Amino acid sequence: MTFRGLAVASAILLLGSCHGQALKRADTVYPSSPENATEIRVATQDAFFDAVASAMPGDHIVLANGTWQDFDALFQAEGTQEQPIQLTAETPGKVILSGQSSLRLAGNHLLVSGLVFKDGYTPRSEVISFRRDSENLANNTRVTNVVIDGYSNPDRTQRDLWVGLYGKNNTFDFNHLAGKLNAGPTLAVRLNTEASQENRHQIRNNYFGPRPVFGSNGGETFRIGTSHYSLTDSLTVVENNFFDRCSGEVEIISNKSGGNIFRGNTFYASRGTLTLRHGNGTLVENNLFDGAGAPYTGGVRVINARQTIRNNYFKDLTGNRFSGALVVMNGVPDSPINRYHQVAGAVIENNTFDGVAAIELGEGSDTERTATPVNSVFKRNIVVGADGANPLNLYDDMSGISFSGNVSSAAPPAVIASGFDIRQNLTPSDGDFLAMIDGAGASGAYGVAKDQTGVSWYPKASEASPFEGGRDIQLQPGTDVLSTALKMAEPGDHYTLAPGSYRESKIVQVDTPVTITSSGQHLAILSFERSHLFVLTGNGSLALDGLVVSGEAAPDGSGNSFVSTSAARGSGNHILSFSHLRIQDFDVNRGFSVVSAAKGSFFDRIDVVNSDFENISGAVFKLDEETEDYGIYNAEFLNIKASHFKDIGGPVATVYRGGTDESTFGPHVDVAGSSFENIGNGSQPLMVLHGIQKGSFTGNTVVDSQPIALTFTTGLPVFTSNSNTIDGAARDEFANIADLRNR
Amino acid sequence: MTFRGLAVASAILLLGSCHGQALKRADTVYPSSPENATEIRVATQDAFFDAVASAMPGDHIVLANGTWQDFDALFQAEGTQEQPIQLTAETPGKVILSGQSSLRLAGNHLLVSGLVFKDGYTPRSEVISFRRDSENLANNTRVTNVVIDGYSNPDRTQRDLWVGLYGKNNTFDFNHLAGKLNAGPTLAVRLNTEASQENRHQIRNNYFGPRPVFGSNGGETFRIGTSHYSLTDSLTVVENNFFDRCSGEVEIISNKSGGNIFRGNTFYASRGTLTLRHGNGTLVENNLFDGAGAPYTGGVRVINARQTIRNNYFKDLTGNRFSGALVVMNGVPDSPINRYHQVAGAVIENNTFDGVAAIELGEGSDTERTATPVNSVFKRNIVVGADGANPLNLYDDMSGISFSGNVSSAAPPAVIASGFDIRQNLTPSDGDFLAMIDGAGASGAYGVAKDQTGVSWYPKASEASPFEGGRDIQLQPGTDVLSTALKMAEPGDHYTLAPGSYRESKIVQVDTPVTITSSGQHLAILSFERSHLFVLTGNGSLALDGLVVSGEAAPDGSGNSFVSTSAARGSGNHILSFSHLRIQDFDVNRGFSVVSAAKGSFFDRIDVVNSDFENISGAVFKLDEETEDYGIYNAEFLNIKASHFKDIGGPVATVYRGGTDESTFGPHVDVAGSSFENIGNGSQPLMVLHGIQKGSFTGNTVVDSQPIALTFTTGLPVFTSNSNTIDGAARDEFANIADLRNR
Repeated sequence: MTFRGLAVASAILLLGSCHGQALKRADTVYPSSPENATEIRVATQDAFFDAVASAMPGDHIVLANGTWQDFDALFQAEGTQEQPIQLTAETPGKVILSGQSSLRLAGNHLLVSGLVFKDGYTPRSEVISFRRDSENLANNTRVTNVVIDGYSNPDRTQRDLWVGLYGKNNTFDFNHLAGKLNAGPTLAVRLNTEASQENRHQIRNNYFGPRPVFGSNGGETFRIGTSHYSLTDSLTVVENNFFDRCSGEVEIISNKSGGNIFRGNTFYASRGTLTLRHGNGTLVENNLFDGAGAPYTGGVRVINARQTIRNNYFKDLTGNRFSGALVVMNGVPDSPINRYHQVAGAVIENNTFDGVAAIELGEGSDTERTATPVNSVFKRNIVVGADGANPLNLYDDMSGISFSGNVSSAAPPAVIASGFDIRQNLTPSDGDFLAMIDGAGASGAYGVAKDQTGVSWYPKASEASPFEGGRDIQLQPGTDVLSTALKMAEPGDHYTLAPGSYRESKIVQVDTPVTITSSGQHLAILSFERSHLFVLTGNGSLALDGLVVSGEAAPDGSGNSFVSTSAARGSGNHILSFSHLRIQDFDVNRGFSVVSAAKGSFFDRIDVVNSDFENISGAVFKLDEETEDYGIYNAEFLNIKASHFKDIGGPVATVYRGGTDESTFGPHVDVAGSSFENIGNGSQPLMVLHGIQKGSFTGNTVVDSQPIALTFTTGLPVFTSNSNTIDGAARDEFANIADLRNR
Repeated sequence: MTFRGLAVASAILLLGSCHGQALKRADTVYPSSPENATEIRVATQDAFFDAVASAMPGDHIVLANGTWQDFDALFQAEGTQEQPIQLTAETPGKVILSGQSSLRLAGNHLLVSGLVFKDGYTPRSEVISFRRDSENLANNTRVTNVVIDGYSNPDRTQRDLWVGLYGKNNTFDFNHLAGKLNAGPTLAVRLNTEASQENRHQIRNNYFGPRPVFGSNGGETFRIGTSHYSLTDSLTVVENNFFDRCSGEVEIISNKSGGNIFRGNTFYASRGTLTLRHGNGTLVENNLFDGAGAPYTGGVRVINARQTIRNNYFKDLTGNRFSGALVVMNGVPDSPINRYHQVAGAVIENNTFDGVAAIELGEGSDTERTATPVNSVFKRNIVVGADGANPLNLYDDMSGISFSGNVSSAAPPAVIASGFDIRQNLTPSDGDFLAMIDGAGASGAYGVAKDQTGVSWYPKASEASPFEGGRDIQLQPGTDVLSTALKMAEPGDHYTLAPGSYRESKIVQVDTPVTITSSGQHLAILSFERSHLFVLTGNGSLALDGLVVSGEAAPDGSGNSFVSTSAARGSGNHILSFSHLRIQDFDVNRGFSVVSAAKGSFFDRIDVVNSDFENISGAVFKLDEETEDYGIYNAEFLNIKASHFKDIGGPVATVYRGGTDESTFGPHVDVAGSSFENIGNGSQPLMVLHGIQKGSFTGNTVVDSQPIALTFTTGLPVFTSNSNTIDGAARDEFANIADLRNR
């Protein structure tokens, strides 16, 4: 099908289409068994292993419905092309593998379908592995209609894969993978032996559900190859997959091998880019990159030789620099295999850029990355920046790219202007107008509709706030009221506290998102007798409004805090929201914090507004537990507005992000319209911000405090400081800055 | 009973006796119910709460045998002196409270007996509390024949009490408390309201089982009061208790109130001292302090006014300075309530010191602690130092102590010599000889026999090695052999590996002490595919001998290690022993360690002998996770002998103990007879030792390495360095020393 102009673009964007040899769900997922095959229903692990041991071509092993706990399954067998050996669920979606379960495949012509992995994590390095061990791989094998949901190691730093593809000619299609929180790609194609190279795997119509910010390198959703084998061709086809908020790190997909095809995929509100990190000769076409205006959403990042990016639609992408809608990197001359190879022979054509923040050319140019692109073309693209502005940025000499036949809504940099026809008020979705543009714009349909991916019997991720959808519950004052109520908490519950005193003699564990408000502002007073009042674990998030919190009853030991976290039962990207809180008398002993992150735990955001903090002996927000310098940190966003801090023993915030990798967008710290008096007990800084990537300090009033200690360690950190009043005098900057990047 | 001479001392030492109004187990533990009382057997938590709600004087509530999970029991009732209300077990020892259970008592004349707390930890700040809340206390209440065993919060830093005594006239006797691992005293008498002061509690005949080294402040076994209420009298009697290896920190008992009596207790092989930390007018008599030659064992540390220490027997105590057999501290002039009050009116008489390392007088003398003891006496004591040496040390002017009528085996310092009669070859246990000494030596019997304490139906702690007592198991080479075998491990198991290759695709969790050896030295070769091979948790300890360990199969991520720990399921003072190991090729990525401690975990010891380490990218022993400067650290002893280190990317050891409190004896690092070549990749120190208390570096050979970075932060650290060869030259010292103590 050929597509001219974009008359019906907005409809097509979400409908998607089937390309080439795409499998259709209805007729391929459950092939009927041949006449002479045996259907073997198994209800125990032993029965399963027996069935596998004696499996013959055409056999069909059916797992009984129910929960299979700690099922370390090995499916090694030899089917034939005509008579594959099947492993399926009695009812798709009703066979749950939980606890310490995993599935290894080895042999030929196997088919797996209908299983669900949840409520646990793999004890191995993979959940589903297309190999038994380094000698026994799976080939010609298909995994389809399988779900892996939240099957994350509770230790975020433990690295594993949910799917590891080895061997050749394997198909992974119509699967649902959502919610990976620990290190390591969700899916990886491995090329580590010759038996896994030039593999021609087909990865189609999968639903890759939300992958939240990982807070370190290692959060990509998809990887093909590694730098070590990147000059080898993988020949993998990645087609018609839906990437839904896959925002783990700067790379959504890390392509590290040659000869792959990415076609017809939708990237929805996903941070970062499809990155052609290593390897040559990959084709990227007919994909839809729809940022939906979410932060840091990008498109394709181009490195290496003979990459083709054509007929893609890039829409509402807000990212810039490494996360632009299109990023063409500078290379390193004579690059080692794990650095940046020069862009050569890139073909970038017939793409539509619709409301994108940035197209970055020569990105990464510095004293090491000096090799500009060569023998490349950028032609017949439609370029419309966000708000009609020019999105094209040149960071070096781009004479190695030939620009021609492009259409843009704003003037590009003069040096490449001859390659652009300027059409003001250009709107790609305005079909009438675009139909006039001969030869420019993408050709074909873009992306795939969400409901054409994954499985029909398992719900896809909601976009609703985690704090909504629960019950409204009224609580009366007393002892242990919160710990008792929250034991029964359901996601999105709202608790309203009647005026009075709430004393907690136990730690209140929060493992689901809940909201706690006072029925009259500052009329509900909380105090606590253990080292913490709330500990967030699992999927715990907390929105608090209108409460008074006193530390007076806390135990006489160091290191207390109001809200802490525990990685012991998993750390599910917590959200913390403080509104109209009054927090006071946290001074029974040293180092009493308001919020303290445990090592191995991670906050998506901490939002503080209209809150007062007085008489706190420690750091108010203690987010500095990841001291290993591996690029790990404790919170993506710390956002403080219109709040007041007085008589604080430590800094208001201590944030630590070590390491020098460029794989994260955070941490971010923004502080505005707030006041600070007597912070850090006369000696410690107002805040200690080490390795943050973005920050601001605007419109604040500071008295009797030391400047912010700000240390830049990696990336392109931006910290803005404006309109502050320091000890009565107007002043913008209030930071001592150290830059360790050029040591 | 009056005792003259020590003719039968050695027998009496372990027999003990009953003093004063001591309770006898047989006739008091289970008082019969009065005629008109009701016996109410309850089998559910609801039935228990109903029974308590309607309980009348004389009632007897009997908990059914079995395990009561998550039993948050409140026993609030009003008995009478004649008719107490009882809560007992159907069969003593057969009622187990586990999971998140606790027991709160409130009211009058209650009696609790026969319960066992194990397999869990309290969700509150106490396991057994003699109060419901700050308003509702228990008085005239007795808890007897109760066991709390290993009921420790898995998070070591979470502070709780196993027993909190409030109210007045309560009795806690014949109980068994063993194995507390988390922060906070095992038992504390609280004086925080007037209703708990001058309480006249009786704490008798309890068995305090082993409390291992806590690795921070907060590991005392027993505390009475806090500094805040220390000028108040507690009037608590602590009599005939057995303290078995209570070695949590420098204070076995922290007495922080006035008017208490410590009588007839045995302190066996317990590190630290009974410390009269705050408060005046306490009596310490007829106790036995038997160090059994264990390290850091001490006796009594004296601070404040009108303390009496008489008729005690101090035997085989190796401690000095703060942990001497007797320590008389200097005070701070006009001391604030939480510092050191001057010793005044101390009476130290008729004690026997038998083979003790040190009696420290004027200890702690420095520019702050300048107030020497006044109006005190030291008379009629027998003083025999270890090996016959003089144990008496004076750190300041001791003219405020009158010395008279003492007998010693060696000459004391000249300035106090007139108070001593020297008898060479004095042997306290030599009754014939001692009988000749008129008026000197202790009077009465000492201590209590272990079997006169605790309960008869629960075993007391063994003194056997944790690595003994299990099975002998032979293993053959293969994949996942160790993880499969160790799943079924029992305490003390020995695994012998036949020659060959052992590959592990899963992390091997070790939660009990096991030994793994090779049947032929260096013939069993271990490799692993996850970030760690072994993770110690719970009570896991590991002794390894004769193995080769390769890192070549480890995943390509930072921070791998051969042995790590996890605090997720509790960190039970791990022991690690490496003997004849060959550890190599730990270099797949950055920061690959051999041993890495997780935050919140603790090693009792790491012993390394005759082992080779080559090609390691990270710190070999990474013990620096406790960065909060609260005095917490990761390992008590690191002991390296006759081992070889070559081509190491990081330091050989990184040890961090922050904070300035003086409450720990460790960490210790001793390195002897070992060789080091190319350590720290040319830039990092040979070792980074921050805040260690004791260390040595002796007889080592070093080539191409930077000196040890040694930082003193607190206490009286000692580091010796002798007979080393550095880059071919004989040299003693090889450290850069920073002393932060006088900043």
